[in-house]
Amino acid sequence: MRRLWRGTAIATMDGGSPWGWIPDGALLADGDRITWVGPASASPPDQAADVVIELGGGVLLPGLVDAHTHLVYGGDRAAEFERRLQGVSYEQIAREGGGIRSTVAATRAASDDTLLAGAIRRARALMTEGVTTLEIKSGYGLSEHDEARCLRVARAVGTATGLTVRTTALPAHALPPEYEGRADDYIDAVCQWLPRWHAEGLVDAVDAFCERIAFCPAQVERVFSAARSLGLPVKLHAEQLSDSGGAALAARHAALSADHLEWLSDEGIVAMAAAGTVAVLLPGAFHFLRETRLPPIARLRAAGVPIAVATDHNPGSSPTLSPLLMIHLACTLLRLTPEEAVAGITREGARALGLADRGTLRPGQRADLAHFDIDHPRALAYAFGQHPACRTWVAGQETA
Amino acid sequence: MRRLWRGTAIATMDGGSPWGWIPDGALLADGDRITWVGPASASPPDQAADVVIELGGGVLLPGLVDAHTHLVYGGDRAAEFERRLQGVSYEQIAREGGGIRSTVAATRAASDDTLLAGAIRRARALMTEGVTTLEIKSGYGLSEHDEARCLRVARAVGTATGLTVRTTALPAHALPPEYEGRADDYIDAVCQWLPRWHAEGLVDAVDAFCERIAFCPAQVERVFSAARSLGLPVKLHAEQLSDSGGAALAARHAALSADHLEWLSDEGIVAMAAAGTVAVLLPGAFHFLRETRLPPIARLRAAGVPIAVATDHNPGSSPTLSPLLMIHLACTLLRLTPEEAVAGITREGARALGLADRGTLRPGQRADLAHFDIDHPRALAYAFGQHPACRTWVAGQETA
Ligand SMILES: [Zn+2]
Ligand SMILES: [Zn+2]
Repeated sequence: MRRLWRGTAIATMDGGSPWGWIPDGALLADGDRITWVGPASASPPDQAADVVIELGGGVLLPGLVDAHTHLVYGGDRAAEFERRLQGVSYEQIAREGGGIRSTVAATRAASDDTLLAGAIRRARALMTEGVTTLEIKSGYGLSEHDEARCLRVARAVGTATGLTVRTTALPAHALPPEYEGRADDYIDAVCQWLPRWHAEGLVDAVDAFCERIAFCPAQVERVFSAARSLGLPVKLHAEQLSDSGGAALAARHAALSADHLEWLSDEGIVAMAAAGTVAVLLPGAFHFLRETRLPPIARLRAAGVPIAVATDHNPGSSPTLSPLLMIHLACTLLRLTPEEAVAGITREGARALGLADRGTLRPGQRADLAHFDIDHPRALAYAFGQHPACRTWVAGQETA
Repeated sequence: MRRLWRGTAIATMDGGSPWGWIPDGALLADGDRITWVGPASASPPDQAADVVIELGGGVLLPGLVDAHTHLVYGGDRAAEFERRLQGVSYEQIAREGGGIRSTVAATRAASDDTLLAGAIRRARALMTEGVTTLEIKSGYGLSEHDEARCLRVARAVGTATGLTVRTTALPAHALPPEYEGRADDYIDAVCQWLPRWHAEGLVDAVDAFCERIAFCPAQVERVFSAARSLGLPVKLHAEQLSDSGGAALAARHAALSADHLEWLSDEGIVAMAAAGTVAVLLPGAFHFLRETRLPPIARLRAAGVPIAVATDHNPGSSPTLSPLLMIHLACTLLRLTPEEAVAGITREGARALGLADRGTLRPGQRADLAHFDIDHPRALAYAFGQHPACRTWVAGQETA
């Protein structure tokens, strides 16, 4: 099946000219692959296609790649959010079993069907804003059984929605209550769980949370070694609240990405640049946690570290399902340019997942497309809280 | 026509109990007026209604009241936003004719039809998030002819959409280029325009921008005097960038509202409280301009000044059409509670427009309703960038 898209501007995001901008463009795909992109005036004739998709204006972009989400969990934390604003302290809420522990308890208590229904609902919300590839982490089960359930649910989200879902095992997200005071024992257990999950085909990558309130570099190192002995790529929540050298550790393990990075050091930047590790910036969490320390954008740029942008959807620190708002916040809060922000959630998002076949529009790439009713992609960065009309195609097929 | 809504939680926002919360509620209206609200168990029988609207879950709220927008203008400022992020200075952009002057030029150059089509599109975006009453300011025409055109367009938005639109004349928004260096002459002209616009029925209220970069208190005083001699209520953009005593000035003129208020003084608070002037907070502009000085929320609360929340939609400092995101930002950035933020864009929004017949759900009020697919109204504050499914009714009639 050959499909021809036309009647639209195209932003290829392929890194050549600004935006890869084609004011009146056309794109041809054969099956799931792009075979031609260019100005409509030079386009193949309609007869070259079995189907012509007349877009009637707007802008065609690569399908968005949300490279960092925690989409599978039970419950939400809206009541906790309200109580904080009513003046209740974080400590009081923690004493009452709030915070991440409440999400772990709700996740463990939820049935597979409940977890899946919630995750599908959230994935569909992301799709309405152009997402075609999605990373989903575990990390709220924190037992062999419940983490595996969450990873299976993540796989099932892909089946149910048609999205590409990349699963990331994140058992080293927080210490579960039954391991209180025994973090090293928990890491021992995690290292035994990983091969079994991998044997079941549940794991595309392994992540950890390296922070004083989570796991130390030596513990992360053990998780990474276990992952790499299975041939699995790693990524890391690093330098969000302090500089613990996580980014350099991740780079030593050839990590796909190091994420957050507000406290990233120059040593970390050099190591990431050398390893080709992507910096995934998460402006939703930056906003929701009211952080004030910016990731070192200028130094990342200067060092040539690729910069991705993702939603970090999670109930505790980034309850958003709007990749378009992340584009805006990446500009307004983190001072990326609109082009950098859009590239961050297309081309560089794909890179952060190790996917070389998408994130730009050029021949040979998968025909993952997002079409927005806007006049220029910079409009995605400028207007905030918007949801322009959007159609998406995954591997050439329009999504429901 | 008697209509009965049921199968939903209700948040009446009437100020009695928290949220005016009714977990399983029903609401009856006769024509355009609410006649009964309460728990479903005590509800009038179905036979009491000509039509029964079964909502199947979710939360019914008063229709949202967006009490501060600049919805009518030509062009946008997306390219300017992009250039700023590329490192171009504000001064350079101003030299090139950017900033508010570019919007004034684009507004003057746009046809009535173009202005109306843009304003209707924006109003419909607000409606998809529950808005049923909307204030629209002029302020980008800055001539007798072009301000009147914008006010007529604002009126036409109401006719086209079914929304209640309250028009506010804001010729004292900025000094038009043809009056450069002659601000007092411009104010003279404005005072002559107001009676003619009023005679045409174009003006529900009069606003001004009191700031060093705009008009001084003495000039605002003249505009207010002209307005009040016509029997028109006033409101003021006050204390956004500095304390110029605008709020106290507004209160002396029994203003409906003073808006922005980041630099509001204690004297201003006392004057507003005494005059019953509403504090309209605009978290979209606070966010977009990356302001750091918060309005004095605790002191406003302590003084009993009513607090409203609005989008301030405009192309320069708040290009958002999401009242739900404003609820979130009012909490996250300004530290309102979720209930205060929702009350701010329902009950207090109505008060800021001098409308006593809406903004809460109780007998005698107009049946302006917004129904959201959420489990509790606090969810509107917690999740950001969301667009839950929403239905609205204006005066009992469902909007398209
Ligand atoms: Zn995360
Ligand atoms: Zn304004």
